Amino acid sequence: MHVNETSHPTLVLGFADYREPARRLAAAAGMGYAEVEVHRFPDGESRVRLPAGLGERVILCRSLDHPNDKLVELALTASAARELGVRHLTLVAPYLCYMRQDKAFNPGEAISQPIIGGLLAQWVDALVTVDPHLHRVATLAEAIPVRQAECLTAAPLMADFLARELEAPVIIGPDEEARQWVAAIAGHAGLEYRVGNKQRFGDREVQVAFPDPPPPGRHLVLVDDIASTGRTLESAVALLAGTRPASLSVLVTHALFLEGTLERLRQAGVTHVWSTDSIPHPSNRLELAPLLASALV
Amino acid sequence: MHVNETSHPTLVLGFADYREPARRLAAAAGMGYAEVEVHRFPDGESRVRLPAGLGERVILCRSLDHPNDKLVELALTASAARELGVRHLTLVAPYLCYMRQDKAFNPGEAISQPIIGGLLAQWVDALVTVDPHLHRVATLAEAIPVRQAECLTAAPLMADFLARELEAPVIIGPDEEARQWVAAIAGHAGLEYRVGNKQRFGDREVQVAFPDPPPPGRHLVLVDDIASTGRTLESAVALLAGTRPASLSVLVTHALFLEGTLERLRQAGVTHVWSTDSIPHPSNRLELAPLLASALV
Repeated sequence: MHVNETSHPTLVLGFADYREPARRLAAAAGMGYAEVEVHRFPDGESRVRLPAGLGERVILCRSLDHPNDKLVELALTASAARELGVRHLTLVAPYLCYMRQDKAFNPGEAISQPIIGGLLAQWVDALVTVDPHLHRVATLAEAIPVRQAECLTAAPLMADFLARELEAPVIIGPDEEARQWVAAIAGHAGLEYRVGNKQRFGDREVQVAFPDPPPPGRHLVLVDDIASTGRTLESAVALLAGTRPASLSVLVTHALFLEGTLERLRQAGVTHVWSTDSIPHPSNRLELAPLLASALV
Repeated sequence: MHVNETSHPTLVLGFADYREPARRLAAAAGMGYAEVEVHRFPDGESRVRLPAGLGERVILCRSLDHPNDKLVELALTASAARELGVRHLTLVAPYLCYMRQDKAFNPGEAISQPIIGGLLAQWVDALVTVDPHLHRVATLAEAIPVRQAECLTAAPLMADFLARELEAPVIIGPDEEARQWVAAIAGHAGLEYRVGNKQRFGDREVQVAFPDPPPPGRHLVLVDDIASTGRTLESAVALLAGTRPASLSVLVTHALFLEGTLERLRQAGVTHVWSTDSIPHPSNRLELAPLLASALV
């Protein structure tokens, strides 16, 4: 029944809420683009419809922020794709969900990371993501036991962007967890860097200290993998403002920016807020498409 | 490690948004009640935490209306329960989701019913539900390949309720699909019934006709398994109002009542709107707990 599937070129399948990044990926990878039609019924159920003309290999492209609807839609899409003869399904999700719940912080808590990871591994054959927030597991394959897992980093993109945008910026990591990543960004463009010490008090209270503060009068750029409530960034901004910098900017991979975070950062004196297009947001400046495409070929 | 689990009594685990029906089930089944704590983060992720003291067998009780968040939370809960040593997990979901999408209405559409059914079957060992909206499949086990599937009907409860509430009511089914079910309700209490003919024009336009209308001056009760947009019920109400009934009421198993349906029915002249407590709603009058409990023992 499925004659000549191999003659179909690989398509990138996007979704309306992630259209532009997925289109850019298709263009960068030299692939065609088509869209999965998602309808949400008033009763909260989702209907997905796949386009015609799928070959044996398909790339699904959608970040998994605000994930629960998207996870159910991914189950539906993956299953329908198999029915239509797709044999190899790659999920390109620059932002992965449920990566931070990697242990039971209280007895009885579901450890969401491996559970959701197990579902994803059931649905797709390969996964491509960027700067996942892995703490207690060392590799993406541990979190998501998918056959092929490609864990990319936006560090070189960020380095090139900052070197272009600012004169001799100093890269600032808010905490020790970020050290390796911050060092990679700085190293790539031959820039200086500093790393803070973070202490967490309760759910939202965060205090950052800089034992070795940056010199005054410089362009400082706080970088982090994710900005959600932004408490960590805010605490760091408050401290760094005291060093009388030439400018103070924020650059993140994943721009969740919940609950007025962006406004609070601007009020705290942040000059620029930049992000990659991992999650669509007005701060998006760095396109991940070339990086993502390089993992597909 | 798991010593003496069998000495734990079976618990009913409820959720805050389905607390009262689950508590009533526990009481009717003579079981203890405890709650799964669900937290929804501002970024849309869910965290679930199970109570202590679970035995080898657990009953989860939650209807799956507005299902996507609940499905993800069910995956998390089921997996955490296994980690805690639970060996047999029953899901009591009086309302099941995705039962209506049982074929591809357009090419390329995901057929949600078996896909979601397959997920549920992965997560739980047994399933108890009430009046599922099965069209093109004959049995619940076909839709959801779970080891034990118990498909209950609220028909006897409804019959007893109506016989108590009204003098010689006439039970009205809106369409042929409902005939068997309506006949069962009427038969159980020795009541008269009528069944309409439904024609569907597009997504929301529905026309119902009654080739054999009920006699005038009677208490008419439109019964259906589910009221969502209520278009079918509205069309039937408009027609039946012409028979000059003593009263005109609506009784459904699953009270979804989307988009002002309830108000429109009241404006159309409906005297009473009643439902079971399958989905929490102000119209709830019939408690399913004794019926559900009978399937557990």
